[in-house]
Amino acid sequence: MVPVTDISEHGAAPAYASQPPAPLHPPAALPLRRRSAAEEARTLVAGARQGVLASLSADGAPWGSVVTYGALADGAPVLLVSLMAEHTRNLEADPRVSLVVAEPPNDENPLDRGRVTLAGRAVQPEGAARSAARAAHLEAMPSAELYADFDDFRLFVLQVERVRWVGGYGRMDTVDAAGYAVAAADPVAPHADGAVRHLNADHADALLEVAVALAGFTDATRARCTGVDRYGLDLEVEAPRGTAHPRVGFPTPVGVPDGLRGACVDLVWRVRTAG
Amino acid sequence: MVPVTDISEHGAAPAYASQPPAPLHPPAALPLRRRSAAEEARTLVAGARQGVLASLSADGAPWGSVVTYGALADGAPVLLVSLMAEHTRNLEADPRVSLVVAEPPNDENPLDRGRVTLAGRAVQPEGAARSAARAAHLEAMPSAELYADFDDFRLFVLQVERVRWVGGYGRMDTVDAAGYAVAAADPVAPHADGAVRHLNADHADALLEVAVALAGFTDATRARCTGVDRYGLDLEVEAPRGTAHPRVGFPTPVGVPDGLRGACVDLVWRVRTAG
Repeated sequence: MVPVTDISEHGAAPAYASQPPAPLHPPAALPLRRRSAAEEARTLVAGARQGVLASLSADGAPWGSVVTYGALADGAPVLLVSLMAEHTRNLEADPRVSLVVAEPPNDENPLDRGRVTLAGRAVQPEGAARSAARAAHLEAMPSAELYADFDDFRLFVLQVERVRWVGGYGRMDTVDAAGYAVAAADPVAPHADGAVRHLNADHADALLEVAVALAGFTDATRARCTGVDRYGLDLEVEAPRGTAHPRVGFPTPVGVPDGLRGACVDLVWRVRTAG
Repeated sequence: MVPVTDISEHGAAPAYASQPPAPLHPPAALPLRRRSAAEEARTLVAGARQGVLASLSADGAPWGSVVTYGALADGAPVLLVSLMAEHTRNLEADPRVSLVVAEPPNDENPLDRGRVTLAGRAVQPEGAARSAARAAHLEAMPSAELYADFDDFRLFVLQVERVRWVGGYGRMDTVDAAGYAVAAADPVAPHADGAVRHLNADHADALLEVAVALAGFTDATRARCTGVDRYGLDLEVEAPRGTAHPRVGFPTPVGVPDGLRGACVDLVWRVRTAG
């Protein structure tokens, strides 16, 4: 069999010769929800304030440039750009545009990182819409207050028409405008990296208990958290039979930015009271 | 006077009410060369392997997406992309394209970071040119070996026609194709951050000696390195009269990746033998 190995927007991750071990006991009856593509897209956009804008030069060629942005409640990016910049003149002449927001590259494979493209039209808002857009940009970029009202700056709202999210190998989807507008960013995403470090540094025993009692790996010898989001924990579990990567869902999605600690305590409480 | 404060491709940095102090003695007669815009562009492209591609969708709208790249000896980026990806289909239909390569964002102002746009045409090389392009991509992305010869992957060389470099506030320029092709990436750039940390952590006394004897700040009480490149050191110097940011050039540009240490030792030798 030819190994199925692929990149970027291909659908398949590498297929390894050996399969990871399965749980020995049925996992606990907890929801195994993951963020939807629309939620992933909203989370990426909410987690950054810099992206690359693709606009059209006067001759119709595509022009890429770095911009900062804020976002409206429906996730529409708000740009505040100078007429001295080529992209601003491009947007004034042709509103078609797309904005790419990407997780920062790491030293491993850059194609296994999340990114999203928002395509649509850049419009200059007026009246109350302009005030709301101005406030959204300044919330993300407070230093823009200094030039926000200069005559040669323009405020644009990117009216999103199409969204393409790529989460890494084999994780990608297209989202329509309505689905993007109503989805919520994951409120715990800004704290996720710190939570993973804290769990692994200070709560390795509790993670092992969770792997044994809730993920069903009763022979687990070590468990490490590899990711956390509002819906649950991703674990790497070592057992004599091999290494597995189970997910353990939270009983209830975390709804507030500082809710991760409570959700994790709740999981451990379930372990210790399950008898 | 209205403060001149500006962003992105505007030309002016903030003008502060008070001016930094000048040297008390004439600085040493050392070259004060800085990297040219073409060298900055080549350095950014050589220092990354991921960028955002702006291509044209079938309806002529601009489409942005993340790609990895390698680079030929003349700095032309080489893409290896799957037909399953929208950008590949775009390039096959219309070769006009631009590629943005940016320094990773930091927590300070994202607009004060370097980035470059390479605009031109994406062509599929043949024969020896194809072999060279394939090798250049694989040098940057060794894992691409796994799919480089799959039928549904395409190799493109971005023939650069226009380059726009932005180094941060007030530092930007346009570079033509020939200027970009012949410029060299700074060989010490990959080591610059580590060198700055090392100089500040372990050689604060030597930096102060350099600030006093070579930059002419004879009343300096403390000196910190804020940047280093093949042509010299940027310093932040504290004196009773205020804080200044002089540059001290190396007598000879550093020509090799591991040449920074020798250049710094040479500077300190000049201080200590100057009498």
